[in-house]
Amino acid sequence: MPETARPDHRYGNRPTMKDVAARAGVGLKTVSRVVNGEPGVTPDTERRVQEAIDALGFRRNDSARVLRKGRTASIGLVLEDLADPFYGPLSRAVEEVARAHGALLINGSSAEDPDREQELALALCARRVDGLVVIPAGDDHRYLEPEIKAGVATVFVDRPAGKIDADVVLSDSFGGARDGVAHLIAHGHRRIGFIGDQPRIHTAAERLRGYRAAMAEADLPVHDSWVSLGSTAPDRVRTAADAILSGPEPVTAIFAGNNRVTVTVVRVLADLDRPVALVGFDDFELADLLRPGVTVVAQDAAQLGRTAAERLFHRLDGAPGNPQRIELPTRLITRGSGELPPAD
Amino acid sequence: MPETARPDHRYGNRPTMKDVAARAGVGLKTVSRVVNGEPGVTPDTERRVQEAIDALGFRRNDSARVLRKGRTASIGLVLEDLADPFYGPLSRAVEEVARAHGALLINGSSAEDPDREQELALALCARRVDGLVVIPAGDDHRYLEPEIKAGVATVFVDRPAGKIDADVVLSDSFGGARDGVAHLIAHGHRRIGFIGDQPRIHTAAERLRGYRAAMAEADLPVHDSWVSLGSTAPDRVRTAADAILSGPEPVTAIFAGNNRVTVTVVRVLADLDRPVALVGFDDFELADLLRPGVTVVAQDAAQLGRTAAERLFHRLDGAPGNPQRIELPTRLITRGSGELPPAD
Repeated sequence: MPETARPDHRYGNRPTMKDVAARAGVGLKTVSRVVNGEPGVTPDTERRVQEAIDALGFRRNDSARVLRKGRTASIGLVLEDLADPFYGPLSRAVEEVARAHGALLINGSSAEDPDREQELALALCARRVDGLVVIPAGDDHRYLEPEIKAGVATVFVDRPAGKIDADVVLSDSFGGARDGVAHLIAHGHRRIGFIGDQPRIHTAAERLRGYRAAMAEADLPVHDSWVSLGSTAPDRVRTAADAILSGPEPVTAIFAGNNRVTVTVVRVLADLDRPVALVGFDDFELADLLRPGVTVVAQDAAQLGRTAAERLFHRLDGAPGNPQRIELPTRLITRGSGELPPAD
Repeated sequence: MPETARPDHRYGNRPTMKDVAARAGVGLKTVSRVVNGEPGVTPDTERRVQEAIDALGFRRNDSARVLRKGRTASIGLVLEDLADPFYGPLSRAVEEVARAHGALLINGSSAEDPDREQELALALCARRVDGLVVIPAGDDHRYLEPEIKAGVATVFVDRPAGKIDADVVLSDSFGGARDGVAHLIAHGHRRIGFIGDQPRIHTAAERLRGYRAAMAEADLPVHDSWVSLGSTAPDRVRTAADAILSGPEPVTAIFAGNNRVTVTVVRVLADLDRPVALVGFDDFELADLLRPGVTVVAQDAAQLGRTAAERLFHRLDGAPGNPQRIELPTRLITRGSGELPPAD
């Protein structure tokens, strides 16, 4: 059978085989025969059924069909950036859970592009994944509703789904950032900078909120010049750090919004003539071997992936209930950079 | 017909719809109807055609069909380890080339398991990728021959294909390791250890060969106790390093066979009371910020991915000619750890 076309009415209710049978004026078994390419249907009937399928935009649940036919089950993982080491342990954890369930994991990366995310997620569905774990780049996931209705279990991880109600597994970005900044304040810092990812990214916004909360709880002002949000490209981060560290009121400490930001800030501080305290969100390899060791707010990337994947297979196994929001705690790991006193 | 849309004919011997029609004793259009699931064929005829298809091993070129239907083109990437940072830039480079060609990249990981690699590669083919970039875990890729004959372009990267003739893009593991070990010898070392990955892995064997070549060229003996091959799991590497660094004739320098080994050896040396020189194969993030900086034999992982992906799209565009073996040079980057003199 050729693939039936992707339904054009994305947000409506999904037509069933019953609807097709009713419209074509045939029995359910006949529709099933046509849909599954089984013999025993006259050309006339097949044409009538096909016309009903086209008119209604009916789409066979390929996943179930794949499983019925005993082909390898698979789940898809939509990543944000293939080269961000944070997603390595997350991906591998999802893969290990998939393997434990006898399923293959197929990945793709949105490269932080919402259109790319949608194209990729739908392409994975068209390639018959049984479920999807999505690290969203966009904030509108209504495009997935037809797939979810068609039986493609979907769990979001690291960032929440947008405009649809779905299972999501997150780290406590707000609480983690607040704790990390409070740690710097506890070590005597009053002028603390925040360098983060694009504000439209949920985790970046939450961590900024945590930074502001910690500053407010200590009755400390936040100068606009201390906060810099944008790309995590090394050049952008370097420029931001240089600006925050110079100017009329240079900061004595920096909170870095994620591991990509932290490693560049570490480079900037290594060239500096005075000690500047640093706490970074996300742990990273070798952070403990740097001098000073880098104090971080660690997320458990593997646990995020494991939890999301297990949630997905619960759904695939028919677990009932409304979508859940699972939030995992973060952990402050002190290694030296976050315990440096203010230089002045 | 799909066949004409794709560069399959460089292989030639693939059964065509004509063959199926002849064997089934029906017309070409009838075969086409069955193959494409179009109406207008009686169950009897359909069964006869299906029998001919099975007997001849005819396989519709699904990729071309997908492209004809205007669905997203895609290529598959079979990785070895999702959590090895070496593959991050490689994957992203493959993805950027795919995107430049309007294709999606779909990844999966073999987790260094040959059966898993085969299962994954075939699953990606079954999901209609137009081409495959494979970082092989196994050494027998004959299982891919039917797919390649069916028009799925395939390029191997990082490690060569086994038992089939295919395009492959490699780094010069032998030459790079030889240069790295010669560098340690040039700095006065005579007792140099080698800690590498499993010897069945092509790159591990080539790097060991390079180590032995450099030692032989300097007329230096290699004691069995100086060479340790196996898993790159931290515990295994730590045990191997401890053994090589103790015993009757402890080494004064270590050559680490890849980045996973290097980062663990760096940890072992950091706890040591005497300086031991280290050169690692593969560069890694922050290597320059460690004290001492870690001297490495760097491969250009992004260039490996880019070259392999471009080769793949050349093939998909119908580039003729026999499979090529492309070998990229490595680069020695001196940062301090490889320039330490012998401790004794």
